Amino acid sequence: MKKQSFLGDDYLLSSSLAKEIYTKYAKDMPIFDYHCHLDPKAIYENKPYLNITRCMLVEDGKGDHYKWRAMRFNGVDEKFITGDASDYQKFEKWAETVPNLIGNPLYLWTHMELYRYFGITSELNKDTCKEIYNKANDILKTLTPRKIISSSNVKCLATTDDPIDSLEYHLKLKEDKTFDVKVLPAFRPDKFINIENDIFNEWVQKLEEVSSIKINNYFDLEKALLSRIDYFNEVGARISDHSIENFLFEDYNLEEIDSIFNKKRNNISLSSSEINKFKSCMLVFLGKSYSKYSWVQQYHIGALRNNNSRMFNILGADTGYDAIDNSISIKSIGKLLNCLESTNELPKTILYSLNQYDNDALLALIGAFGSNVKGKMQLGSAWWFNDHKEGIYKQLKDLSALGTLSNFVGMLTDSRSFLSYTRFDYFRRILSSYVASLIENHEYPLNMDRIEKIIKGISFNNAKEYFGIEF
Amino acid sequence: MKKQSFLGDDYLLSSSLAKEIYTKYAKDMPIFDYHCHLDPKAIYENKPYLNITRCMLVEDGKGDHYKWRAMRFNGVDEKFITGDASDYQKFEKWAETVPNLIGNPLYLWTHMELYRYFGITSELNKDTCKEIYNKANDILKTLTPRKIISSSNVKCLATTDDPIDSLEYHLKLKEDKTFDVKVLPAFRPDKFINIENDIFNEWVQKLEEVSSIKINNYFDLEKALLSRIDYFNEVGARISDHSIENFLFEDYNLEEIDSIFNKKRNNISLSSSEINKFKSCMLVFLGKSYSKYSWVQQYHIGALRNNNSRMFNILGADTGYDAIDNSISIKSIGKLLNCLESTNELPKTILYSLNQYDNDALLALIGAFGSNVKGKMQLGSAWWFNDHKEGIYKQLKDLSALGTLSNFVGMLTDSRSFLSYTRFDYFRRILSSYVASLIENHEYPLNMDRIEKIIKGISFNNAKEYFGIEF
Amino acid sequence: MKKQSFLGDDYLLSSSLAKEIYTKYAKDMPIFDYHCHLDPKAIYENKPYLNITRCMLVEDGKGDHYKWRAMRFNGVDEKFITGDASDYQKFEKWAETVPNLIGNPLYLWTHMELYRYFGITSELNKDTCKEIYNKANDILKTLTPRKIISSSNVKCLATTDDPIDSLEYHLKLKEDKTFDVKVLPAFRPDKFINIENDIFNEWVQKLEEVSSIKINNYFDLEKALLSRIDYFNEVGARISDHSIENFLFEDYNLEEIDSIFNKKRNNISLSSSEINKFKSCMLVFLGKSYSKYSWVQQYHIGALRNNNSRMFNILGADTGYDAIDNSISIKSIGKLLNCLESTNELPKTILYSLNQYDNDALLALIGAFGSNVKGKMQLGSAWWFNDHKEGIYKQLKDLSALGTLSNFVGMLTDSRSFLSYTRFDYFRRILSSYVASLIENHEYPLNMDRIEKIIKGISFNNAKEYFGIEF
Repeated sequence: MKKQSFLGDDYLLSSSLAKEIYTKYAKDMPIFDYHCHLDPKAIYENKPYLNITRCMLVEDGKGDHYKWRAMRFNGVDEKFITGDASDYQKFEKWAETVPNLIGNPLYLWTHMELYRYFGITSELNKDTCKEIYNKANDILKTLTPRKIISSSNVKCLATTDDPIDSLEYHLKLKEDKTFDVKVLPAFRPDKFINIENDIFNEWVQKLEEVSSIKINNYFDLEKALLSRIDYFNEVGARISDHSIENFLFEDYNLEEIDSIFNKKRNNISLSSSEINKFKSCMLVFLGKSYSKYSWVQQYHIGALRNNNSRMFNILGADTGYDAIDNSISIKSIGKLLNCLESTNELPKTILYSLNQYDNDALLALIGAFGSNVKGKMQLGSAWWFNDHKEGIYKQLKDLSALGTLSNFVGMLTDSRSFLSYTRFDYFRRILSSYVASLIENHEYPLNMDRIEKIIKGISFNNAKEYFGIEF
Repeated sequence: MKKQSFLGDDYLLSSSLAKEIYTKYAKDMPIFDYHCHLDPKAIYENKPYLNITRCMLVEDGKGDHYKWRAMRFNGVDEKFITGDASDYQKFEKWAETVPNLIGNPLYLWTHMELYRYFGITSELNKDTCKEIYNKANDILKTLTPRKIISSSNVKCLATTDDPIDSLEYHLKLKEDKTFDVKVLPAFRPDKFINIENDIFNEWVQKLEEVSSIKINNYFDLEKALLSRIDYFNEVGARISDHSIENFLFEDYNLEEIDSIFNKKRNNISLSSSEINKFKSCMLVFLGKSYSKYSWVQQYHIGALRNNNSRMFNILGADTGYDAIDNSISIKSIGKLLNCLESTNELPKTILYSLNQYDNDALLALIGAFGSNVKGKMQLGSAWWFNDHKEGIYKQLKDLSALGTLSNFVGMLTDSRSFLSYTRFDYFRRILSSYVASLIENHEYPLNMDRIEKIIKGISFNNAKEYFGIEF
Repeated sequence: MKKQSFLGDDYLLSSSLAKEIYTKYAKDMPIFDYHCHLDPKAIYENKPYLNITRCMLVEDGKGDHYKWRAMRFNGVDEKFITGDASDYQKFEKWAETVPNLIGNPLYLWTHMELYRYFGITSELNKDTCKEIYNKANDILKTLTPRKIISSSNVKCLATTDDPIDSLEYHLKLKEDKTFDVKVLPAFRPDKFINIENDIFNEWVQKLEEVSSIKINNYFDLEKALLSRIDYFNEVGARISDHSIENFLFEDYNLEEIDSIFNKKRNNISLSSSEINKFKSCMLVFLGKSYSKYSWVQQYHIGALRNNNSRMFNILGADTGYDAIDNSISIKSIGKLLNCLESTNELPKTILYSLNQYDNDALLALIGAFGSNVKGKMQLGSAWWFNDHKEGIYKQLKDLSALGTLSNFVGMLTDSRSFLSYTRFDYFRRILSSYVASLIENHEYPLNMDRIEKIIKGISFNNAKEYFGIEF
């Protein structure tokens, strides 16, 4: 058997049973990427990349900031990351960084990306840099975004979209019969929840324009957002997404929420209690709305963003300067879920904590809320800073011990890069090794029909059923 | 050798040395279950179960809520869990759930229960459900609570009892010469500590009645509780138990405690500072009292209870809607222990955190308080949501690294189900595998006499010595 | 091959590749102990120890309090630990404790110390105690502190020194041509930061004397501290060290800091906000100062000290009564780093959290601050209560997954005992096993030149480069 790269075929596969499980049941399953940050316009326009740097690292100040962080850790000058160095120079700096990444998921991801999409089987380093750059660029002449998606066996993906977005490209993609991958929008209304932000009033004004609803008070804001949920639903959205940060649940009544909203509209500063009340109210209102539409909501909890203000002033948000908040309040999440549950309006919910040591607490909590729907409440796949071998194992073990692994909706990329679809393969190898280890330890019988169902479920089928998308 | 079930004999045993250690030193040791929630009345009356559902899952709205949670995660309607479905229908839903529990301790526990007490060697699933139901029910005609306890090799168990309890059934069991398992009461005074609860005044009134002490002020409350400790001690209690929740230690003086108590008695609402002062004072008073009686106190720290108010209104407490508080204050626990230590009145103490990531911090802390008594301060066995393979391994590793494993008082069930005695076997297999791994890694010599002493100690002998119970 | 002790040669080495890596690249590398608590006077005077108890356990109430904790856990009376028992009796109690320490790093450390420095190959226990005591004492007639250091292959070590220290013995050691190990001072100004302490004013007065700068206001304090930094730098210091405890970053202006300082000088009590502002300001001022001198600063975060006030009154600080604070604020650390970074005055920084579950959060955070200098921001080696097999593995895994292992500056002892240099060997065995496991799992290629560079780097070369010490 031809080795797929200098690493061989068996990386991350811990035993022959793991290999069998992976090869038979996981490897060839299609992909449902239910949460990513891909640009629908780039998918629609489907322009080829000028070179591998733009595809793999950075283009117009955007790209795979996981790799940027690794370069910064390695002392690379920002000029060669997001700055004005040439594309080749940037790739060279990345090539020099890669061999230092022993034990980092980027070491495997990079070589999986190079093998899968470019057929490159040697290590990227300063000696191979030039050759790989040229070979990859040749291939990129015909390797467009859509081709990367299709060849990754993606059947459906959900982007992340602002409520004011026109969804123009989602509509165009829907009508484009030459591309049969479903590209769904997802509703991410953070800007209307984080009332402490300067940008809030500006966004409300934009919402007025897009929705054609005059927003004079809080109740108008609800109406306008509902109209956008309805519109998103029409275009195919079935999923919402929230980044929950700096949040403590506080009881509220609608009268005080309206008054908080009016204060903000008049640029009067709010107390932290007022901010928490408003956020609590909005999360409850939106959860109830999703419930009406049978959507799935996602809570991404605990990001600590834009820690380096000097670099934020230069590069803006989502450029690799975020971190993990270790002070997430499980009690607050519990009160929020309870508030939705108390009126039977809790939608299907996927919860992710950026602090992986909250996995147990989240699982114990959601076990109190999953009534009558199999796998209704989900602990999301190892997220962001946790998306590496140890983090994925931990999430699988935590989920098994305190929930039901077999109902898991599985992996997603959460990525801005088309090449990240290799992460599904990375995940499936770990999943196969984990399940094999349970059998080898005699904790579960060697029943291959059962294993097939579990592995195919987590790889694709569970997500398909959970999100109710028809193929 | 006949396989004990379809899983074989060796589950959880990681090597031949692990098997040897388990078989020679762990397997046949008696059980000292120093903390459980078994009903002394049920033990005394010793009535056979109507069927396996009532023994294994639910009877009169009570039972093994670990299993209920798994069914809810799997989408089973509450009707088939605690509701009005037939006993067989409930068992059927459980049988359908079991094969989904790969990696969950319930998968092993269920089959250990079926094998150990019913001789059933096949997997419980929808195909085997009927046959297993019938076979188990046959056996249950003669398998009474006492028989389950005796055949599990239990020598002593401690229940969990309210200070106002008459201990009627403990007294009867003491006098019953046909049952030679010691059934001790344990003192659980939470209702008198959690002054924020509505129920507090009602409980004080009941205490007045039971103790025949008129409670006009805080000092009377102390007197009445002391009289109950004395009574419990007379009946055989040597252990107390506290659920410490929502607690921050605050310094206090007795004058203000008396005034806080009077406010509560007059239904005046208390500030959180007043509540914390009262709790601090009560925990100190009780700790000192236990010290006088040479009791062991247990602190169960960090439960987040009754998260689903809709279901709480239907089913009440302890029905599977609890979770883990991730915001336990180690500083507060330290201040409490220091307060007791400063007057040399700190009793033997076992601390459990429901957040397993506090293990290290608790161990580091209790290392500052164990003067002159071997193993005086104990990190309790992996508790509740942590009572699974990974959690048990973690507790053993943490305890070894920061404390002394060989002084560990070992496993307990904390269970409401008689069948849970199989969890001792589950624990001992993991313990044997862990100790074997240390020897295999050359971190400890292959000295079988030493290993025998350590394993038998943790399995039974250490607890016997620690609690000072004579057999 | 002769076994180095009754444990054999291969403890902690998980495979033949691990052994090869350890033997070829790690074992014989020199040591750079960039943070310890050794006494420069003891190194200079180089007096032999009276006996093994004084070398290994306790001398004049000081010594290896890790071992004291283990003895206390095991119920040993304080008389035999720090009290007035004879030296032999103390050693005997330690010998009786050792066999109980299965899985505790002290079990291996003790036997590594006995083998490495005394050639003792049998287990220390009550049977071998007398013989080992005598044999070790014989050897101690010629085994002086300097000989322990030299024979451990230490090239450089940095002690921990108060800003008011005269550094007399560092100067003498510098001039002593008979000892070629570099002994550098390190600047530890905690007493000038923790303004809440009673001792603060006394220390300011001592600083006035030592610096000959009259301290009438906060700005004079800055001047005086700067003069000491300058002096330390002259004597060879390149490193500072901070214990960050009970700290929340608060914005401040210098006017209010001056007024807070004056309040303290007039013995007016400070609010917690004032204390936090002062600490924030001092940490920023000092960080900027280190940056000017190109020093490395260390943040040791999250110790919870002196928990047992009864024993504190008897034995004082640093006697084994400290613990782990589980409520460290990552946000505060982020604000502090950001404050230094915003003016481009963030020095090289090594961060340690005593709560190992903050590793991820610290790594994610420092990834936002490492501009243009390879490995500028470091997650420190597993510290204090985490310095054991599982803790070291965890730190290596966390560092690999979220940072760059290959830039790691590696191990340090943080110890008060000369014998602790064996901990480098303990660390290197774990490092070799971890790297081998990545290769065996096909996560990194079997490129021995590369592995040599990585292992030698982490063992010594990275630290040498990072601290800029010339040999």
